[in-house]
Amino acid sequence: MYISINNELFLNEEAKISVSDLSIQRGYGIFDFLKTINNKPIFIENYLDRFYNSAREMNLMVELDREQLRNTIQKLIAENNIPNSGIKIILTGGYAEDGYTMMKPNLIIIQTPLEIKKSLPNQGMALVSYNHQRQIPQVKTIDYLQAIRLQRFVQENHADDLLYHNNGKVRECPRANFFIVTENEIITAKNEILHGITRSKILSLELPNYTFTERDFSLDEVYNAKEAFISSSTKNAFPVSKVDGKLIGDGKNTITDIINQKLLTLIELDQQV
Amino acid sequence: MYISINNELFLNEEAKISVSDLSIQRGYGIFDFLKTINNKPIFIENYLDRFYNSAREMNLMVELDREQLRNTIQKLIAENNIPNSGIKIILTGGYAEDGYTMMKPNLIIIQTPLEIKKSLPNQGMALVSYNHQRQIPQVKTIDYLQAIRLQRFVQENHADDLLYHNNGKVRECPRANFFIVTENEIITAKNEILHGITRSKILSLELPNYTFTERDFSLDEVYNAKEAFISSSTKNAFPVSKVDGKLIGDGKNTITDIINQKLLTLIELDQQV
Repeated sequence: MYISINNELFLNEEAKISVSDLSIQRGYGIFDFLKTINNKPIFIENYLDRFYNSAREMNLMVELDREQLRNTIQKLIAENNIPNSGIKIILTGGYAEDGYTMMKPNLIIIQTPLEIKKSLPNQGMALVSYNHQRQIPQVKTIDYLQAIRLQRFVQENHADDLLYHNNGKVRECPRANFFIVTENEIITAKNEILHGITRSKILSLELPNYTFTERDFSLDEVYNAKEAFISSSTKNAFPVSKVDGKLIGDGKNTITDIINQKLLTLIELDQQV
Repeated sequence: MYISINNELFLNEEAKISVSDLSIQRGYGIFDFLKTINNKPIFIENYLDRFYNSAREMNLMVELDREQLRNTIQKLIAENNIPNSGIKIILTGGYAEDGYTMMKPNLIIIQTPLEIKKSLPNQGMALVSYNHQRQIPQVKTIDYLQAIRLQRFVQENHADDLLYHNNGKVRECPRANFFIVTENEIITAKNEILHGITRSKILSLELPNYTFTERDFSLDEVYNAKEAFISSSTKNAFPVSKVDGKLIGDGKNTITDIINQKLLTLIELDQQV
């Protein structure tokens, strides 16, 4: 498997960067993550939009323009031939002699196999809530300090992942947005979150008898929801069965299932473009 | 110049780690930074205390015990022979195949030349305040997202560095603690900051007619202080002449100078141990 570093391909085991890089020295970098199905990158323009926006927000210059970056990704896809995959594009603060000053960014592109599931699992995931507001939340930075640090906490709470809230206002999971379903609303946070591409696709859907609402909501609203689900590029819409040990709804996930099917349809349409 | 990676020495240009490391993937790591004078590491036990504590707080296992780590540092000092230097010890989340799960940490030790100044400069530094509370502030993580992102903001404000405050409560600089001097008090923040080694040395000093106070204080108190200074391992006590464009005190820095001299005496004593 090849990894692209600054537009040059390296074998997996040879893909290394100097320890002077600002990601290692100062945790400084952004990234994005998209998937391919049958070697076709899905919604690539949306992901590139966000990637260039993250770079701009963090004062990082991307040496490749959009077409060059698209070509680099295509070259990697062609060389690796992993039809269903995740593609991670990382942009770091570059090699800093002094370990502090922002330099010419390093661009790293990594492809890994990804299993695409077409139907919901029998069992949703369990989340445990945690009071944490991500810094610079609108930017997809590489900062996952809390999420990685709390891996043990998640296990100890018999959960699969975290659900961040800011003093009671529900925000997002470390790698996914979060939705609840009520009698006639599908609700997700609006502020101080990363605006996921899958989240935006969901908000563009139409469901009879349901309206989509972006607003703050509380953990109590989560516990009393009819359904809850997360959205992400790898999981599409994925049911959440428990939050803080409390069962959510009756476990049927009817609306989550409809949304997931509609997402899969959008993805199929994009494959044909 | 040699760099130590997992207890093996590499030449500067060959000191590389795989892009699967969690520092690059997820900004996950801690570090510490101490200085040597005439090849003697200063206050090393204090720094090792904090390093192992940071590792513990972030669930990172240090493969080397304290004596082994001390020996590794000594070996590096002997090989490099840079009498006056800074030594940075970085511990990352390790090589994660999945780019997310914490693995066996990587230990990187980098030595760089450091000029040790014995007297205060004629001109203190200029700071610009910024509303930001560091996450997990008590731990020396590699998270400098805000500090690096704001390098341009600092320049635009004709400043040398940032002064973080949490909604008006003054905290610290990105790489230094911050003190103000009033008529009879030397004040520094107590909560939600990194407790610097140099800061603790200062708080252990005795100055006739002055008491050391750890408490919250406001930007207004800064603007009206008689003196202000930062403390760090590289700069000892270093005067601050301006904050947000406002001149602090009369620029004589009498107390800062006394504190700096007393620090230099403590450092000299440690050299003789």
